[in-house]
Amino acid sequence: MARLARFSVSMDERLLDRFDRLIGRKGYQNRSEALRDLIRDRLVEEEWSGGEADVVGVVSLLYDHHTKGLVEALTGVQHDYGENVVSAIHVHLDHHNCFEALVVKGRAASIREMADRLGSLRGVKHTRLTFSSSGRDLP
Amino acid sequence: MARLARFSVSMDERLLDRFDRLIGRKGYQNRSEALRDLIRDRLVEEEWSGGEADVVGVVSLLYDHHTKGLVEALTGVQHDYGENVVSAIHVHLDHHNCFEALVVKGRAASIREMADRLGSLRGVKHTRLTFSSSGRDLP
Amino acid sequence: MARLARFSVSMDERLLDRFDRLIGRKGYQNRSEALRDLIRDRLVEEEWSGGEADVVGVVSLLYDHHTKGLVEALTGVQHDYGENVVSAIHVHLDHHNCFEALVVKGRAASIREMADRLGSLRGVKHTRLTFSSSGRDLP
Amino acid sequence: MARLARFSVSMDERLLDRFDRLIGRKGYQNRSEALRDLIRDRLVEEEWSGGEADVVGVVSLLYDHHTKGLVEALTGVQHDYGENVVSAIHVHLDHHNCFEALVVKGRAASIREMADRLGSLRGVKHTRLTFSSSGRDLP
Repeated sequence: MARLARFSVSMDERLLDRFDRLIGRKGYQNRSEALRDLIRDRLVEEEWSGGEADVVGVVSLLYDHHTKGLVEALTGVQHDYGENVVSAIHVHLDHHNCFEALVVKGRAASIREMADRLGSLRGVKHTRLTFSSSGRDLP
Repeated sequence: MARLARFSVSMDERLLDRFDRLIGRKGYQNRSEALRDLIRDRLVEEEWSGGEADVVGVVSLLYDHHTKGLVEALTGVQHDYGENVVSAIHVHLDHHNCFEALVVKGRAASIREMADRLGSLRGVKHTRLTFSSSGRDLP
Repeated sequence: MARLARFSVSMDERLLDRFDRLIGRKGYQNRSEALRDLIRDRLVEEEWSGGEADVVGVVSLLYDHHTKGLVEALTGVQHDYGENVVSAIHVHLDHHNCFEALVVKGRAASIREMADRLGSLRGVKHTRLTFSSSGRDLP
Repeated sequence: MARLARFSVSMDERLLDRFDRLIGRKGYQNRSEALRDLIRDRLVEEEWSGGEADVVGVVSLLYDHHTKGLVEALTGVQHDYGENVVSAIHVHLDHHNCFEALVVKGRAASIREMADRLGSLRGVKHTRLTFSSSGRDLP
């Protein structure tokens, strides 16, 4: 069972007031939750910065599925990094455009490499790699 | 049928050489394709910056599904923005941690608002909003 | 005289432990100071996102001062936004390359516009706009 | 004397049209110049990503100069990284707030370390590290 730490923080009350208004607008019920989120977000950046840590993320792809050979190439690259692709979702946006979100897992460096290879294929119009975490070390 | 434009670009050959080496490492077969990708990426930023444009993106969520009331709250928010959530993928990372990627569509401002509301729920450990595009105006 | 607020925060002790290690590596002496910095950084993002707030920042420029007409053009744009340029520093990097950092102040939207105009001049190789704050509302 | 390369690029004319409108709004006179800027901006990211390359950048600092011991501490850190600080500009924003922009040069890893140490000092309210380049390999 996780143990809860409790500690006190001091800050100028005008700073706290601005923070409270910001997190109110964002929908937070609770100052501790908002601070935990700020901390976790910073830790996720750290996990990805090294390259060697085990991370979770999303590769998003926008492509024209009519491009000759593209679907095969996309599948090929995903197989080369088979252990990194956890799951995928495919959305038909219109007659030409497909959108795909791959949930990826593994070494940050491999995942960057895979995203580069997917993004550089002809017919892939846009790629982004989104950082997240397995949550294991992110209580 | 799309018409192809062809134009010439001039640059210092040392700059071109560095660019060619960069895109070679990324896996590009073709300089035009790499330049088109740079341009599209910049246009996607523009689409999202206004707030009013119709965009496509991904909201990624890492959460502990044991948090009391969380699954209902996540579903509730997604229903409030029903027309914006195109599709979703759910991954069980371990006993506690779930990862969800929502493909979202619509006005940039609504999507930001939904992402804020999801991210501020207690038990959601990490949220990111990834920008992409419907591709309709991004040949 | 500023009044100090003191409040308590609760979090899983493993999360707190990771945060403490991170801020130790960064050199923080003090957890409250690190949390205040996280909060201020988020508030600076908010100040800039609207366009209408009064902000402070830096426009950094790398350029080749041998480019014909460039020095005049840079000066001209800076004069058009005279009230926004607080101060400037100029560094001669080598025979060709100059680096300039302009401390800028005013409406976020004007400053973005000025940075765009400077960055688009021929001979300016690289521009970045860095967000900061006047500190007035950022205790 | 630099040699100019000239090459042709092909793209869907609707994509080119959107790009031309974007760069028109930004103030570019010339499509080649806008493409060179996109390329250089990407190369600057690469230079900084490794940690070992020689880079140029700006560390911006917002601080309250009344904080006891702060001015000495800021000076101390800057001396520890003396070879990295090329030049500095100091602006008195109001009775409390000072803004400082340091033009920095050297190994990306050292500069990040220095920025962390400066940012973690008590009384420093906000720090950003801005990436740029010496321009030497960025024609």
